[in-house]
Amino acid sequence: MANDKIEGRNPVIEAIKSGREIDKILVAKGTKEGSINKIIGMAKDSGIMLQYVERQKLNEVAESNNHQGVVALVAAYKYSELEDILAIAKQKNEEPFVLILDEIMDPHNLGSIMRTADAVGAHGVVIPKRRSVGLTATVAKTSAGAIEYVPVAKVSNIAQTIDKLKQEGLWVMGADMSGEEDYFDRDLTGSIALVIGSEGKGISRLIKEKCDFLVKIPMAGRVTSLNASVAAATLMFEIVRQRKKK
Amino acid sequence: MANDKIEGRNPVIEAIKSGREIDKILVAKGTKEGSINKIIGMAKDSGIMLQYVERQKLNEVAESNNHQGVVALVAAYKYSELEDILAIAKQKNEEPFVLILDEIMDPHNLGSIMRTADAVGAHGVVIPKRRSVGLTATVAKTSAGAIEYVPVAKVSNIAQTIDKLKQEGLWVMGADMSGEEDYFDRDLTGSIALVIGSEGKGISRLIKEKCDFLVKIPMAGRVTSLNASVAAATLMFEIVRQRKKK
Repeated sequence: MANDKIEGRNPVIEAIKSGREIDKILVAKGTKEGSINKIIGMAKDSGIMLQYVERQKLNEVAESNNHQGVVALVAAYKYSELEDILAIAKQKNEEPFVLILDEIMDPHNLGSIMRTADAVGAHGVVIPKRRSVGLTATVAKTSAGAIEYVPVAKVSNIAQTIDKLKQEGLWVMGADMSGEEDYFDRDLTGSIALVIGSEGKGISRLIKEKCDFLVKIPMAGRVTSLNASVAAATLMFEIVRQRKKK
Repeated sequence: MANDKIEGRNPVIEAIKSGREIDKILVAKGTKEGSINKIIGMAKDSGIMLQYVERQKLNEVAESNNHQGVVALVAAYKYSELEDILAIAKQKNEEPFVLILDEIMDPHNLGSIMRTADAVGAHGVVIPKRRSVGLTATVAKTSAGAIEYVPVAKVSNIAQTIDKLKQEGLWVMGADMSGEEDYFDRDLTGSIALVIGSEGKGISRLIKEKCDFLVKIPMAGRVTSLNASVAAATLMFEIVRQRKKK
């Protein structure tokens, strides 16, 4: 099985906590500060193999510059199926809340969106098989551990996925500057899928046409777009607000 | 005067548009795609010197890996005064909307917060002189041009600044997990300063005590915190929503 790396203290702590299968944890020799000791203790309690290596060796193994003296080697992240995501909502007896990311290429944006998706209690994230970043080490790190908790389905065809979600009774909302209404003027309670477009181009035309409705985020300044993860967070928390107020 | 660099196509376009003083623009030889031609045209119209250089030379000059074939050399970013920020609100006849960033160290977070601050029409951002990232090239790039439009005041003492803002009639709201109310349960219309804490530690104790009230962002998942720029955006857009609904 392909190996993946989890880098940095909080991500490694979250990986241990979540019970993820960890091959071993590499710790830079001489690292003694607080959270490293916590990681060592947790690893011992869980029977995970620890290996002390020179810091330079760790720099070579790590994919990011932010390993903070610790890297966990794990089985590559597993993807979920769309059905799993809907099953989780049903099991929790909650109205489905799904994110669809149309060609997000930046791993920091995907990681950040997953972190927020966990925070708002979304049931899962859908990404396309092609033209999208996958679940990489950078995504894991930026997600601050959310990658362990938020299921991600990789689908061949976003348009067909939207049709399936509609059949399941979800409303499909796209975030787009051409939207007629501000997002907070729309009723966003109920089963919902939120479509976020790519950093440069927004949602593709075909997918936009598939949406039940488009909303816009009002822009008062001179910069014409928001960062994709900021736009996604703004909409996700409005859904939380409306659901709580209902 | 110290020189600063603006890197990447959109940031350079925004810098030209904003009328910022540009010493010269370096363009990688052989770059011919659309937006580079736009930049060349804009530079000629504005009488800005253009210099064609080898791509490798540009890689050396640039501080980021994302220059996209174009780097503008400009005078270093100027900071504003707190009084300037309040004067802008008065001039626009708007209730002041100020951000206070308590020890944000990550340039991507500062840049992202500035981009959103522009989008919501905030009047300015306050950062401390010590223990904070300043207006660097990475901040400029991440701000997607907002650095040209959003004034940033660098103050010696955030606590004293909060006192001043209170005297000017602003309510000072801090975002903190210890907040008693969810942010959307609070009236956020009116003159307001929003305090965002550092990535790791949140708002420092002293500053928290200075706030008129603390709000929390409800967290439904297992990850215990949001990215600072996502938290800031969520609160900023709730202020927008409430002001529009008033």
